Amino acid sequence: MAHRDILKVVDDMRIRQMRGGTVVTHAALNALRSAALKTKATSSRQFLVELRENIKYLMRIRASSIPLSNSLRFVLLDVKQAADRGAYVKELQNVLANSATQFDTKLEESIREIAEIGARRIRDDDVIMTHSYSSSVIAILKRAYQQHKRPRVFVTETRPELEGRDVARELAAEGIDVTLIIDSAVSHFIEDSDKVLIGAEAVAANGAIVNKIGTATIAAVAQRARVRVYAAASTYKFSPETMLGELIEIEERDPSYVLGRSKVKKLPHFAVRNPAFDVTSPQDIDLIITERGVIPPQAAIMIVREQKGVSVP
Amino acid sequence: MAHRDILKVVDDMRIRQMRGGTVVTHAALNALRSAALKTKATSSRQFLVELRENIKYLMRIRASSIPLSNSLRFVLLDVKQAADRGAYVKELQNVLANSATQFDTKLEESIREIAEIGARRIRDDDVIMTHSYSSSVIAILKRAYQQHKRPRVFVTETRPELEGRDVARELAAEGIDVTLIIDSAVSHFIEDSDKVLIGAEAVAANGAIVNKIGTATIAAVAQRARVRVYAAASTYKFSPETMLGELIEIEERDPSYVLGRSKVKKLPHFAVRNPAFDVTSPQDIDLIITERGVIPPQAAIMIVREQKGVSVP
Amino acid sequence: MAHRDILKVVDDMRIRQMRGGTVVTHAALNALRSAALKTKATSSRQFLVELRENIKYLMRIRASSIPLSNSLRFVLLDVKQAADRGAYVKELQNVLANSATQFDTKLEESIREIAEIGARRIRDDDVIMTHSYSSSVIAILKRAYQQHKRPRVFVTETRPELEGRDVARELAAEGIDVTLIIDSAVSHFIEDSDKVLIGAEAVAANGAIVNKIGTATIAAVAQRARVRVYAAASTYKFSPETMLGELIEIEERDPSYVLGRSKVKKLPHFAVRNPAFDVTSPQDIDLIITERGVIPPQAAIMIVREQKGVSVP
Amino acid sequence: MAHRDILKVVDDMRIRQMRGGTVVTHAALNALRSAALKTKATSSRQFLVELRENIKYLMRIRASSIPLSNSLRFVLLDVKQAADRGAYVKELQNVLANSATQFDTKLEESIREIAEIGARRIRDDDVIMTHSYSSSVIAILKRAYQQHKRPRVFVTETRPELEGRDVARELAAEGIDVTLIIDSAVSHFIEDSDKVLIGAEAVAANGAIVNKIGTATIAAVAQRARVRVYAAASTYKFSPETMLGELIEIEERDPSYVLGRSKVKKLPHFAVRNPAFDVTSPQDIDLIITERGVIPPQAAIMIVREQKGVSVP
Amino acid sequence: MAHRDILKVVDDMRIRQMRGGTVVTHAALNALRSAALKTKATSSRQFLVELRENIKYLMRIRASSIPLSNSLRFVLLDVKQAADRGAYVKELQNVLANSATQFDTKLEESIREIAEIGARRIRDDDVIMTHSYSSSVIAILKRAYQQHKRPRVFVTETRPELEGRDVARELAAEGIDVTLIIDSAVSHFIEDSDKVLIGAEAVAANGAIVNKIGTATIAAVAQRARVRVYAAASTYKFSPETMLGELIEIEERDPSYVLGRSKVKKLPHFAVRNPAFDVTSPQDIDLIITERGVIPPQAAIMIVREQKGVSVP
Amino acid sequence: MAHRDILKVVDDMRIRQMRGGTVVTHAALNALRSAALKTKATSSRQFLVELRENIKYLMRIRASSIPLSNSLRFVLLDVKQAADRGAYVKELQNVLANSATQFDTKLEESIREIAEIGARRIRDDDVIMTHSYSSSVIAILKRAYQQHKRPRVFVTETRPELEGRDVARELAAEGIDVTLIIDSAVSHFIEDSDKVLIGAEAVAANGAIVNKIGTATIAAVAQRARVRVYAAASTYKFSPETMLGELIEIEERDPSYVLGRSKVKKLPHFAVRNPAFDVTSPQDIDLIITERGVIPPQAAIMIVREQKGVSVP
Repeated sequence: MAHRDILKVVDDMRIRQMRGGTVVTHAALNALRSAALKTKATSSRQFLVELRENIKYLMRIRASSIPLSNSLRFVLLDVKQAADRGAYVKELQNVLANSATQFDTKLEESIREIAEIGARRIRDDDVIMTHSYSSSVIAILKRAYQQHKRPRVFVTETRPELEGRDVARELAAEGIDVTLIIDSAVSHFIEDSDKVLIGAEAVAANGAIVNKIGTATIAAVAQRARVRVYAAASTYKFSPETMLGELIEIEERDPSYVLGRSKVKKLPHFAVRNPAFDVTSPQDIDLIITERGVIPPQAAIMIVREQKGVSVP
Repeated sequence: MAHRDILKVVDDMRIRQMRGGTVVTHAALNALRSAALKTKATSSRQFLVELRENIKYLMRIRASSIPLSNSLRFVLLDVKQAADRGAYVKELQNVLANSATQFDTKLEESIREIAEIGARRIRDDDVIMTHSYSSSVIAILKRAYQQHKRPRVFVTETRPELEGRDVARELAAEGIDVTLIIDSAVSHFIEDSDKVLIGAEAVAANGAIVNKIGTATIAAVAQRARVRVYAAASTYKFSPETMLGELIEIEERDPSYVLGRSKVKKLPHFAVRNPAFDVTSPQDIDLIITERGVIPPQAAIMIVREQKGVSVP
Repeated sequence: MAHRDILKVVDDMRIRQMRGGTVVTHAALNALRSAALKTKATSSRQFLVELRENIKYLMRIRASSIPLSNSLRFVLLDVKQAADRGAYVKELQNVLANSATQFDTKLEESIREIAEIGARRIRDDDVIMTHSYSSSVIAILKRAYQQHKRPRVFVTETRPELEGRDVARELAAEGIDVTLIIDSAVSHFIEDSDKVLIGAEAVAANGAIVNKIGTATIAAVAQRARVRVYAAASTYKFSPETMLGELIEIEERDPSYVLGRSKVKKLPHFAVRNPAFDVTSPQDIDLIITERGVIPPQAAIMIVREQKGVSVP
Repeated sequence: MAHRDILKVVDDMRIRQMRGGTVVTHAALNALRSAALKTKATSSRQFLVELRENIKYLMRIRASSIPLSNSLRFVLLDVKQAADRGAYVKELQNVLANSATQFDTKLEESIREIAEIGARRIRDDDVIMTHSYSSSVIAILKRAYQQHKRPRVFVTETRPELEGRDVARELAAEGIDVTLIIDSAVSHFIEDSDKVLIGAEAVAANGAIVNKIGTATIAAVAQRARVRVYAAASTYKFSPETMLGELIEIEERDPSYVLGRSKVKKLPHFAVRNPAFDVTSPQDIDLIITERGVIPPQAAIMIVREQKGVSVP
Repeated sequence: MAHRDILKVVDDMRIRQMRGGTVVTHAALNALRSAALKTKATSSRQFLVELRENIKYLMRIRASSIPLSNSLRFVLLDVKQAADRGAYVKELQNVLANSATQFDTKLEESIREIAEIGARRIRDDDVIMTHSYSSSVIAILKRAYQQHKRPRVFVTETRPELEGRDVARELAAEGIDVTLIIDSAVSHFIEDSDKVLIGAEAVAANGAIVNKIGTATIAAVAQRARVRVYAAASTYKFSPETMLGELIEIEERDPSYVLGRSKVKKLPHFAVRNPAFDVTSPQDIDLIITERGVIPPQAAIMIVREQKGVSVP
Repeated sequence: MAHRDILKVVDDMRIRQMRGGTVVTHAALNALRSAALKTKATSSRQFLVELRENIKYLMRIRASSIPLSNSLRFVLLDVKQAADRGAYVKELQNVLANSATQFDTKLEESIREIAEIGARRIRDDDVIMTHSYSSSVIAILKRAYQQHKRPRVFVTETRPELEGRDVARELAAEGIDVTLIIDSAVSHFIEDSDKVLIGAEAVAANGAIVNKIGTATIAAVAQRARVRVYAAASTYKFSPETMLGELIEIEERDPSYVLGRSKVKKLPHFAVRNPAFDVTSPQDIDLIITERGVIPPQAAIMIVREQKGVSVP
């Protein structure tokens, strides 16, 4: 059975389910490190068996999280290579810790890089529409503001969690002019917008973007209005599984988030559906801003094929 | 100064601002009738002056309401023609009352006709997406259900007023299977839908539809997914002014409807915008269901030119 | 019970089911005339009852045939008006005969007019693609040839009945250069075509065209290649029912036309479907050539509203 | 002069011209192997001259076949490298035999891989439209069926050879529900379809697909209806020549396949054209399923650049 | 032979060929009036013969000018009706003079009406792109400016005649901010534009616009950028002939206007083509502003069918 | 301070500002070589400092020129690597000279290769539209002509510099049939064209093309008419900066080029804008012809990532 630290993190994260992929990945790597230090394995073979089991458990936090699976695959590869080289348990513990730290650091750095590269695309008087909460998007807008640009931002409230209100307050606190609108007003305000800027939960090999529900709607509306759509995503969110034909699963969350807990009584003929994410077609994305540069969605497959620990051909 | 009954109705209606155009029109015609009975005019000329003044006040309820202005123009024309024929005040009172009743009856009948004609377009197993509250849409779906068809319906919650919840309950109570979704999930569920069915606050001469905010978004998303979009609207909602180049004004409502009253404190750099309606381009509408038959939006101009009391060429 | 002549015509026509709407209409009008002459009705009221019954039977030939229902409605209206004027049976017989002849004549004349008007759209060196058998299309091409233009024509073989071979031979016999191609080669040859020219079984109020299966495919392919699509259709094929929301029913024919009679054994999991017609969206039609002029599909509703005997508003 | 075995294979294949690229490639590699065993070459230089001549002859089977030219280029490269290393004739015979077998095996394995990867994209209740005969498509559908999914399949009859009937029977025999339709009914039935799944004769560097005539039509119709189009093609069908600007030649076959041999008499002004393939634009393809993963058509160029024996930059 | 006044006007106008349709029409009506006064006809029949001959000559000024042919048809109809009523030559002279004056007046009034209706569509801060010289467009912009709106205008220079420079100077003199750009910069500046506003030489029954070469390019570019395109055209420019299938002929003018007179030496393999007008598809026009209201291009056919003197059905 | 040769070249080039990127690059490399020979640097470190300064100055010729910055980066990398290996000043001079020559040669060769590869895409009877002056385009057309193909070419005059006249004369002198048209006639003549063939000033990482103003207009018009657009560009014009989010700056040139020097008086409310280039979206480009093969614009990023001296990831 998997180590207690692992189980605890899995439980914790599943409760605070709204958290972004970056937070989840960070916690999982910490748990992995901590479990490795407390290992009772006496052979590298045993250590690897234990590691694989822990990873299996950690994937339960969110089976569909690409940064999570990418980080675990990254660490596993490093440990396996060390084991193949004949390293002992002690050494494998170090390798694992270093590998996890390395991934964490890279993930953090990637957001700084994205902010730098993305801010170059923001013009002084741009009107930008954004949706849901994305660390990368916020970092880009703040960086642009530091460069003395004065973008104005339409922020959708992002039902049902309404995290758009947090985004709006965070940007306004920085000094950036924001206008909060309801999600269904995007067609109305897209005419006044110069760009759409969104984050990504995952990027498929064909350049499709999985992101908070509503993203596909905004991108479709923007594309018709000939407004450019930029997605900001670290390359750790690019999904190698999709090259093998696996589809990214869209999880549905508790209907009580939509109706309020008290109101969800069993009414006949009455259902509520609450998918957490949707898929934006690559045709509706103009560019993806990664820490390795700005790429068209069609180049996502290049990034996927170059990922460490990815065995796709 | 305008009659007390008129002023009262204007005030009443402005407070209950969410009400649909049909309710507003009904109340205005009632007020007009009642004011006419209490008139102190002693000549038909004086009667007409008074009537014009009353109409001017009634238009304040909602300057942009097309059924309202169409109904008042309808009554005025009848009274004027009678006055031109030499009718006395007594007779003009009767003409006005009859004319107002006639309009009211026609409006009611038009919804029954729309239900009948629209229901023919619904197939047994259709999956239909709708948005906001429309008497015509509900009437069509109920009529189809009476004909033993079993459509399933996606209903958007329709922020900020959330009247979609009422629509969902009303349809479910009838026995129709409904699924409530958030507004921004329309891209996700459009793939599973066969048709979009919406009402209309007003129809412009070029076939554009003014309806509750969010309608343009759904129609755009549906059009990209090659899902048909039907708008149900009585011909009393067709707008002759738009032929003269006037644009239909979109009113913005109180931001507190979006954020909740308590939360709208003055935060610097932070604004909320809350337009009540948006405009759906005729390119995104497949057919308009009227009580006079099903027409393509491009034929809206024919309806407009045939309206009683319309002097456009 | 309906007159023997009527029943015979209904049977005859249902067997020779491939015939076009014009032939069917001609036969139905003849039967009506003949039955009226042999009537035993002694009052105009009785005559009308009988006529309505005959019409009901004749509609069984092909419930969806628009020229058929338009012709019967045309005659019925004339007879009814005469009866309303107090005409006797004798007179009603004459009215019916004249009315039927008038419709027949108009239908014939309409094709000559369409040939004249349509030929003006053909340029000397045009490459034209056509599909299935349409008297109007053949008449236009022959007329253009008489005017010393030298169009070249791609003719699809038009499975399953392969009537395209007849079209090709008929045009070639006239001296027009034709190239026979298989139906699925339309994408390949559309690049070499200047225009698509097709007939119509029926025209809906919104300008959609019902025509032999495959028409919608060619029109879609042409539209993408920016090749103009012209439909030739007499106004007697315009359908008033579609204004009332009725959908034009697409009949499915015997699968043996696809597989050959011998081969259709009952194989499990194996079905054949053989719809006779399909519906081409007005967006894929550039112009409709009628005997009353060339109209955009959006103007179809004007034609429908002006049809004699049509009570739509 | 080229060896008898080579000439025999060339003749055989040209007669049975309908066969797919995989069969042709297999036969050509066999002939090459057999000719190499019987060689009278006494020097490796002589052996290479002979090999090049044999390859030149084999290309006559079908000049445009990409798997054929790719396989021959593959073998030639191996033999040349061995010769450059100073290998003798005996050794070169072995190298050639091994290389040919290796290619054959890879080609076979690629179809198994494609079936595996492709089946992941099939959902339980998918309605799939396919066209012509493709081993990869059939393998995918059978694999999905083995995984207890129950797709239903529309199969076009695929004039003029009608190989769609074979596809339908083969799938139905497996237990998969198929519906056979005529080629021109694709617009009618695309509305009821969830996906289009087709094979490929060749894939150009820009992701365009060369496949049996009619494929471009279905893809265009599907794209308009927003139905996804998947092409299944091993990477051995990717064409390096197209990077150098060469266009893939579309061969035209005997008109008697269209009209029947007896009917093709010389009629003046009457021609028949019968192209065997057409080209589907990358814009109309959503994904290409290869044995190395699922790629967007825009990534075809990556596959092309990595091919063994390909000197393009 | 036609009267001297007629011939002189024909000559004059053909020399000053750049003039707009309104100027040409005015001159032609004047000539007709003057010729009628000097007539030597002694019978109304003779008068009509003479009038028809004069009209035939006047059409030579510009065979394709729709306002010209519409004006002459208008006058002819009035005179014919008077002759049918038994009017004498004297009276016919009066009828002709009045009819010509009436047409002239209506044409002038129509521009004032268009300015009024069109100005309602201009918003205070609109950025408008225009092309070539149109009295209606200039009138609309000036009217909007009088209403204290401050539109900014991109004016294309409009090669080869460069009349855009005149438009720019005329608007700037009024106080309107103009920016002159070259014709091929329209894609670059359309992103900064809110509307395109153009005139029309003729409007076809299907809503297509014939206007100065370059109009179709701007409309296509605007449509892609989702910028609205408005055409301003009096109903006297609507063409009834196009309902009968006649295509509007596009005249080609002297190549020396492109290259300069001196430079057009006969160089082998070197040609210059200089079409004066092009045809903008109704799909690229959002609205047509007429003196009778704002209509979608699809409603052009309604205007055409209501024109005086038009015998189309 | 930078060497005199450098300054002179910078000045020269800025005056003759119309010259293409190839000419500018050639001159800059020459200046660099000449300055290096006259260097007074006594250490490799000093030599590198001097080189960097010279490069900084040379970039002033045209900050946005991609071949220029690519060439200087290329040389700098070679010299730096040599210095890192411990080379002395003497040796560095040689390295620099060789590196510069190598780049020059490659640039020249690339045009020959492009001509060869591009000519394969030209068919005997193609009608080709081109815009502005591009050495690559002219080389392709001449090469096709040498291969006995007989393309006909529409050449736009290309305001304001009218270099299209030179292109037309150069091609006509070769024997190729050309037709000169004004820039705004592209919509009119695109219907008669089979392909658009243009050069490129720069290619962005996402495949967007920067080229002479008007290119974006032609490409948009061609795309709507389903006419293929080919851009010819050596890989030395591919821009690595755009991967880092930098936008290619569009320079605006002297308004006197548009209006003529004398006419640009200060008129109030009157401005002239004269951007030199515009940006064509990758969606409007079908293929880019490079010396390394024909690629879809989406593959531009592959070329960019493989460029020597490019540190992008």
